[in-house]
Amino acid sequence: MQIAKSIAELRSARRTMLGTVGLVPTMGALHQGHLSLVRAAKKSCDHVIATIFVNPTQFAPNEDLDKYPRTLEADCAQLEREGVDLLFAPAREEMYPAGETTRILVGPVADRLDGASRPGHFTGVATIVAKLFHLAAPHKAFFGQKDAAQVAVLRQMVRDLNFDLELIVEPIVRDPDGLAMSSRNRYLSAEERRQALVLSRALTTAASAYRYGETHAEHLINLINTVLATEKEVRIDYIALVDPDTLLPLAIAAPGALLAIAAHVGTTRLIDNQLL
Amino acid sequence: MQIAKSIAELRSARRTMLGTVGLVPTMGALHQGHLSLVRAAKKSCDHVIATIFVNPTQFAPNEDLDKYPRTLEADCAQLEREGVDLLFAPAREEMYPAGETTRILVGPVADRLDGASRPGHFTGVATIVAKLFHLAAPHKAFFGQKDAAQVAVLRQMVRDLNFDLELIVEPIVRDPDGLAMSSRNRYLSAEERRQALVLSRALTTAASAYRYGETHAEHLINLINTVLATEKEVRIDYIALVDPDTLLPLAIAAPGALLAIAAHVGTTRLIDNQLL
Repeated sequence: MQIAKSIAELRSARRTMLGTVGLVPTMGALHQGHLSLVRAAKKSCDHVIATIFVNPTQFAPNEDLDKYPRTLEADCAQLEREGVDLLFAPAREEMYPAGETTRILVGPVADRLDGASRPGHFTGVATIVAKLFHLAAPHKAFFGQKDAAQVAVLRQMVRDLNFDLELIVEPIVRDPDGLAMSSRNRYLSAEERRQALVLSRALTTAASAYRYGETHAEHLINLINTVLATEKEVRIDYIALVDPDTLLPLAIAAPGALLAIAAHVGTTRLIDNQLL
Repeated sequence: MQIAKSIAELRSARRTMLGTVGLVPTMGALHQGHLSLVRAAKKSCDHVIATIFVNPTQFAPNEDLDKYPRTLEADCAQLEREGVDLLFAPAREEMYPAGETTRILVGPVADRLDGASRPGHFTGVATIVAKLFHLAAPHKAFFGQKDAAQVAVLRQMVRDLNFDLELIVEPIVRDPDGLAMSSRNRYLSAEERRQALVLSRALTTAASAYRYGETHAEHLINLINTVLATEKEVRIDYIALVDPDTLLPLAIAAPGALLAIAAHVGTTRLIDNQLL
């Protein structure tokens, strides 16, 4: 696996790639969720470019940019093992040199769910992803369903700005006990990790009620609320039943609707979701 | 010359182009300034794509979107004669379908000169140009020095978002009497056209003073003011001596500095500039 630290190295490596290119943008601290994206890319593209960059513009000043886990050596070993052709792992100044000022505002969808809880977050996401699209020139780009609001924002950006590529979304990967994999799970103490299981449990309960005929958003959300309330230390950020493309609330659940949760466990913010 | 009205037609025609592609984005109502861009593109690229689209997002509600000249048939004949391979002339809904919401904000440079006079203008320009870049996938894109602030904004966007293409800027083309060519010159009455000549006259006077050793911004701007004042009907919007990249004011002129004017003649807003 070639490792490019600079834009010049990335561009020159990209130019040697014939056939289709799949891009897997990550912030590192890789887990099986990321690796499932790499495997999907390997399966459907001739070449795979992964990127590791903890993007400062998607973190608010009060968020965890500085303590975000950085495990580059282990990440490289995993990507190499999966057969990634090229890893782009730039320094901050390479992506945001002095004097850069351009931002991509995706519009109202970027202000919903996590965009409401984390103002400006999706402007940072959209901007870095557009930059990586221009740098890697992929035919397909792979993202996880875990970040459901991010998926909606990026779909809107790709459509609106006429990016000539396909967004591929891969299912959430869970630990055997149901916890959705996340780089931020490393922050959890053993006790917090146990408490965090209530998120997937709540979603499973609501999805099961939906399969048994419950379609009222209010009832499904109440149900999730009730399950989450069994863990007193878990502080809810949002519980939402929304259209997965617009992220606008639905009154009645239908196939394809998105049930999504964000909650704090200790100082760690976790998200999880389920498509009905 | 092939004419594509839809994105699908453009993309499929683009895929057949081997070698380098030059893009000349225009709003139509073509004049020799536009044709100089086409000729430069022909000279340095294997294929030339021109676009004609009167971009609504760069016009404020009080501006001239509806009356902006539309001369598609004559434009096509001119582009055909110049050897353009492909013209993309989409309808408004093709570029801005219902539900689109994404905008590119280039930052402070977009709020200077014409960006100050026309709030939001360069957000519209940056957004449509990024879309055309994604659709035409050019190696080089050609713009006129006449729109000096636009050039600064697009350079910043290309740099910040890592577009993999080269911006080529071609000199202002003038009528024999000195008037900078503009699609908006069609709005001018014979008397207004005569008055409008004072813009290039003022710039020439200041540039000549600079060549004779005058470097103080204040003096050069006063000089331009004095010349413009000889035409009572011409209302100044701005006179500026700026850095051509940042569009920030310079106190002292130096080689490469940009002298720029915007003024209203009757109801028509005209711009002109000179690089020192």
